[in-house]
Amino acid sequence: MHEFDLLKKCPDTAARRGRLQLLRGEVQTPVFMPVGTLGTVKALSPEDLKTAGAQIILGNTYHLYLRPGCEIISQFNGLHRFMNWDRPILTDSGGFQIFSLARLAKITGEGAAFQSHIDGSRHLLTPERSTEIQICLDSDVLMTLDQCIPYPAEKADAEAALSLTSRWAARCRRVWQENTGGRNALFGIVQGGMYADLRRRSAGELAELDLPGYALGGLSVGEPTELMYDAAEAALPHLPDGKPKYVMGVGTPGDLVELTARGADMFDCVMPSRNARNGQLFTATGPINISNARYRTDEGPIEEGCDCEACRSYSRAYLAHLYRCRELLAYRLNTIHNIRFYQRLMEDIRLALEEGRFAAFRRAFLAGWNGE
Amino acid sequence: MHEFDLLKKCPDTAARRGRLQLLRGEVQTPVFMPVGTLGTVKALSPEDLKTAGAQIILGNTYHLYLRPGCEIISQFNGLHRFMNWDRPILTDSGGFQIFSLARLAKITGEGAAFQSHIDGSRHLLTPERSTEIQICLDSDVLMTLDQCIPYPAEKADAEAALSLTSRWAARCRRVWQENTGGRNALFGIVQGGMYADLRRRSAGELAELDLPGYALGGLSVGEPTELMYDAAEAALPHLPDGKPKYVMGVGTPGDLVELTARGADMFDCVMPSRNARNGQLFTATGPINISNARYRTDEGPIEEGCDCEACRSYSRAYLAHLYRCRELLAYRLNTIHNIRFYQRLMEDIRLALEEGRFAAFRRAFLAGWNGE
Repeated sequence: MHEFDLLKKCPDTAARRGRLQLLRGEVQTPVFMPVGTLGTVKALSPEDLKTAGAQIILGNTYHLYLRPGCEIISQFNGLHRFMNWDRPILTDSGGFQIFSLARLAKITGEGAAFQSHIDGSRHLLTPERSTEIQICLDSDVLMTLDQCIPYPAEKADAEAALSLTSRWAARCRRVWQENTGGRNALFGIVQGGMYADLRRRSAGELAELDLPGYALGGLSVGEPTELMYDAAEAALPHLPDGKPKYVMGVGTPGDLVELTARGADMFDCVMPSRNARNGQLFTATGPINISNARYRTDEGPIEEGCDCEACRSYSRAYLAHLYRCRELLAYRLNTIHNIRFYQRLMEDIRLALEEGRFAAFRRAFLAGWNGE
Repeated sequence: MHEFDLLKKCPDTAARRGRLQLLRGEVQTPVFMPVGTLGTVKALSPEDLKTAGAQIILGNTYHLYLRPGCEIISQFNGLHRFMNWDRPILTDSGGFQIFSLARLAKITGEGAAFQSHIDGSRHLLTPERSTEIQICLDSDVLMTLDQCIPYPAEKADAEAALSLTSRWAARCRRVWQENTGGRNALFGIVQGGMYADLRRRSAGELAELDLPGYALGGLSVGEPTELMYDAAEAALPHLPDGKPKYVMGVGTPGDLVELTARGADMFDCVMPSRNARNGQLFTATGPINISNARYRTDEGPIEEGCDCEACRSYSRAYLAHLYRCRELLAYRLNTIHNIRFYQRLMEDIRLALEEGRFAAFRRAFLAGWNGE
């Protein structure tokens, strides 16, 4: 079950306001998906995520395959009941983690052989296996297995990876069709490095597969921001407008605004949760670091007007104290704030799109924003 | 504001059902107080504590004095607003931490000179200073500064420590009277090692000060359980029956039942929260260790019938997965369960006392309990 409705287009940019119907419910786009790598968004409970306004979260196939493994999750008929989350879940395919995390990864036409980053055990992830694992997780959105490449990369390497990614996508599609009957959605992943022509070609090849949605992979791998925007802009218009377009692993609040303007509908990133654990808290004027000495006596909330639990009930001074003492509550409250900040940003973006004032919102946001 | 009403006495044991009125509210006794060392019960929010049924929590004067310090807590008019907890708080005096944690502690008649365990900075904690700090925290219950001794200890050393503790108690009492007008309560601490006659003598000396409550300190410092029960039993009857009697730093679920039977009204211990962070979870038949391989596929809750968030929403298999992955949510859910377990135990004890069947409850509990 997957249907995407475009509710409104921005008159000034390529931004879109949409609605994605998935197996476990509806997702209003543009949307930011918090990352729940191992079946938990670090430091938060599912209840915390709902309070923060999360509509859909991400799980990492690579991590969940290694721990706790498919057998245990199957016992619970999938990831939802295992982790007590009843809203949609998107799972990536494992391609990015094999590129970034696994040891001794070796890519062949067949698939990706690698050693676990935890215990060195050997595994082979093929497009078929990646899809089967995601079916076992019963994700609302499955992703095709892709080959990620570093930045910078030679054009020949980028071209080879995109070709392989397209062939793998077709193999994933077959397993998905045969085993789910289209009950869950499958999104294809565009590669092509930072080469505009390759991004266009990859988008075109994937579009031919007529999948329920499409994503841009291989971005935010160390390239300058402008190059990332250009690569996204090269591909997004060549993906079908009637389908959701997802930019994987991105990004900063500014990135979300800018890529929305270029036609992206979905995002995920560890930034709000990871930075929270490092004491970096987001505000409309940019991030602050709660370990800074000036906050030790600051009686105000992280951000005036924020409706999250951390801002409603605690001062910067208390949060600074908790963080300096490495108290566990610090990680939870910081993460609650940052995830809520990201959700509020997306709510603001959606409202601006509905009211036909996204271009003005974008200008005002970027003028006020003083961060990465 | 402090008033203790004895509501009911056990016909078979020295156990009592009481009600302690404090500045921020009423506490039903016997009561267990979760330990919030640094202005947070590790891994929990104040909301979590209320859901678990905590009526009163403990703060550690030694820790709060070092971090964040009195100046910052004064800015918030005390610990309650700083940490967003509006129910009663009891603070210890620092005596136990100087014994167990501080470096190079040197005890004189004046007070305790020590070096911080964090940065080695030098400090002098006198009875006056300890009381002033607790007044600055605006604790509902302040404790007198005591000298703790190790187990085993020579009788002469135990006697010297108890004499000093009595003299210090009188000095604490003076500062408390002059500065609070009795608005907050002050409890005296009985010492005397494991010597029954010294425990009696200490209880008698403190009782002469006519304080709002009394505590037994220096227990659970490595002595065999039976010796600890004997030491408690030596002192408890010699403390005034019209005042609350608090056994500090104790203990296991079995200890709570046994010391209630000996006339104790209040308890605190890091055990439920610390053990939770080590994966040990309490059930009526004894603790289980969630890292045990058998729980990896166990679809049941930690404890059938438990109403805590961990038991209502998650399986042992999920909790085992979180714990193996060292996910932050593991620490919170484990702690929620253990704190709720302790609170349920105290609720059961209170109900058994009200219904005049505490002796039967005690027998049934100990027969079912298979733990330390």
